[in-house]
Amino acid sequence: MTDRFAFHIHATDGTARTGEIRMARGLIRTPAFMPVGTAATVKAMHPQGVRAAGADIILGNTYHLMLRPGAERMARLGGLHRFMNWPHPILTDSGGYQVMSLGRLAKLSEEGVAFQSHIDGSKHMVTPERSIEIQRLLGSDIVMAFDECTPFPATREQAEKSMRLSMRWAKRSRDEFQKTEAGALFGIQQGSMFEDLRRESAQKLIDIGFEGYAIGGLAVGEGQAAMFEVLDYAPAMLPHDRPRYLMGVGKPSDIIGAVLRGVDMFDCVLPTRSGRTAQAFTLDGTLNLRNARHAEDTCPLDAECPCPVCAHYSRAYLHHLIKADEILGAMLLTEHNIWHYEQLMQGLREAIASGTVQAYASARLARLPA
Amino acid sequence: MTDRFAFHIHATDGTARTGEIRMARGLIRTPAFMPVGTAATVKAMHPQGVRAAGADIILGNTYHLMLRPGAERMARLGGLHRFMNWPHPILTDSGGYQVMSLGRLAKLSEEGVAFQSHIDGSKHMVTPERSIEIQRLLGSDIVMAFDECTPFPATREQAEKSMRLSMRWAKRSRDEFQKTEAGALFGIQQGSMFEDLRRESAQKLIDIGFEGYAIGGLAVGEGQAAMFEVLDYAPAMLPHDRPRYLMGVGKPSDIIGAVLRGVDMFDCVLPTRSGRTAQAFTLDGTLNLRNARHAEDTCPLDAECPCPVCAHYSRAYLHHLIKADEILGAMLLTEHNIWHYEQLMQGLREAIASGTVQAYASARLARLPA
Repeated sequence: MTDRFAFHIHATDGTARTGEIRMARGLIRTPAFMPVGTAATVKAMHPQGVRAAGADIILGNTYHLMLRPGAERMARLGGLHRFMNWPHPILTDSGGYQVMSLGRLAKLSEEGVAFQSHIDGSKHMVTPERSIEIQRLLGSDIVMAFDECTPFPATREQAEKSMRLSMRWAKRSRDEFQKTEAGALFGIQQGSMFEDLRRESAQKLIDIGFEGYAIGGLAVGEGQAAMFEVLDYAPAMLPHDRPRYLMGVGKPSDIIGAVLRGVDMFDCVLPTRSGRTAQAFTLDGTLNLRNARHAEDTCPLDAECPCPVCAHYSRAYLHHLIKADEILGAMLLTEHNIWHYEQLMQGLREAIASGTVQAYASARLARLPA
Repeated sequence: MTDRFAFHIHATDGTARTGEIRMARGLIRTPAFMPVGTAATVKAMHPQGVRAAGADIILGNTYHLMLRPGAERMARLGGLHRFMNWPHPILTDSGGYQVMSLGRLAKLSEEGVAFQSHIDGSKHMVTPERSIEIQRLLGSDIVMAFDECTPFPATREQAEKSMRLSMRWAKRSRDEFQKTEAGALFGIQQGSMFEDLRRESAQKLIDIGFEGYAIGGLAVGEGQAAMFEVLDYAPAMLPHDRPRYLMGVGKPSDIIGAVLRGVDMFDCVLPTRSGRTAQAFTLDGTLNLRNARHAEDTCPLDAECPCPVCAHYSRAYLHHLIKADEILGAMLLTEHNIWHYEQLMQGLREAIASGTVQAYASARLARLPA
């Protein structure tokens, strides 16, 4: 643990933990949800609104930012924080996942991944070294090691081969990262659904040494039950005194189950994307605001939600905005959804601190549709 | 003047005036610019942002709101102010202009205008009585008389016939309005580019009696020079002690010229629409943020602008958001543009109060491209 990065666990409740990460740009309360700011904006929100919702940290996407505005250009412009007016911590992914999502436009080798831009077809190469360099140029606070997110389903042989490549890349990421003194680097555990591969991956990462550890290769189509099976053993393979980050997760029930199993950090596009497709999260499940049944409903989205949207606007108004295709509809639904997620994290933190996380989780889950 | 509506002129400077309108829902400082909130939202802005920019009053469109969500539904939902979370004054247009803009979908008669909805093709009829009723159901503070905006160009005969119909409708509007005790009703002067018709129209409106008087039938394609010719005589035909509202105007230079000629109120979609098409207003003219020359420009949109957008974001960031088709781009440009307009009004009010409006206007106009 360096003075650039310190993780303190304040309380545990079973395998769940609550604490804080201290970094130069601020404090991150855990368990933490990181809103996704793909292209240097949490879509449809002012950064002040993201902060007011309770977010201590957001996520930026290396793949999108390296293509537009470009990493070197971002550095010339003073870095991502200044660019987007978010002075608090930012975690950047490594670009690996999104580059591989390009499918046949991407080609993987020991060296890295060659790909063509989805924007203009231009050719690029990302290696572990270049990924770390890009994240440095962006000014990232938490840098992610470059890895291959093993596709699902994978045979044991495929999973082993993919994981071992990611572990070699993890070492190269660490070596590159060490050239600069700033921020933190997280390694990413792979191994698909295979416990022994997860253990081998964890041990290899520990041998290299990271400020934090991500659990990768989940939320890729395996379903909640299979994900929880992995989470029943994977977090304990990682150092107790370092934050554990479950990438790309998830629905509120996914997050609750993962926190109970010892995960500290999450990111997901679900609250923001849902906000742009007329979906609102509530304690009793999701609402589709496009539905005509909301046309004269003067209730807020969620009567128990403390957010500014629920304080000031009715379901009828939000339905109207959606029907009229008004930008404010996306703005307000996104804001509410981010509040919903951050309120969930706050509830989990408080419940862990008071030793009541099982009861809190059960009560939340009981209200959600099966 | 009723106790529901009081207009006080604090200072004059030549024919320019500054003052305030007092209404139950708040104070309107004049000269005033009203951001347009067509469909119960000033597009891409939180209402708090509209207020923070300096707007005392916004405009709602009767045509859009009667079709969606519907006037009776709006009344059941508690009215437009509560619906859209704008507790301050709202002026509603009469729907006449927009209904006639439907072209062959609209049919005009002495009774009113029959038309088909642009949303679903459903058939509707708006009469002066129905227009006033709709504006009442919406909860409007300043109700506009139902009129025909005389098309441009018009022959003298066409302009006379159209104006006289509007004056008969103005009387019917006033009679209908009197059935309810709330808010204010403005009459609308017509007469196209004909001074004698403008005089006849003004006299007919004064004979009926209104809380305020609009100048209609301008900004319809005649150009600034022709508009100013009419504004050289039209405002003085209207009562000195009542607010004068120039509908649908305009560019900053239009507003400056109209204020110098004695106009008190304005509305226009230009700042909001421009904000959604990558255009930013500055003291030195408009910027197109889509232009690649902004890609590495760390300057704010306007170095002299006190708005939150200019305080926190660079042209490079706004360019990036536009290129990436991010909603935040429309949000920030709209916010800046509304601030620009409201700052102009504030500058004009202060200049009139200090007797320096000619110098202020000249200095502003000198910086704008010809």
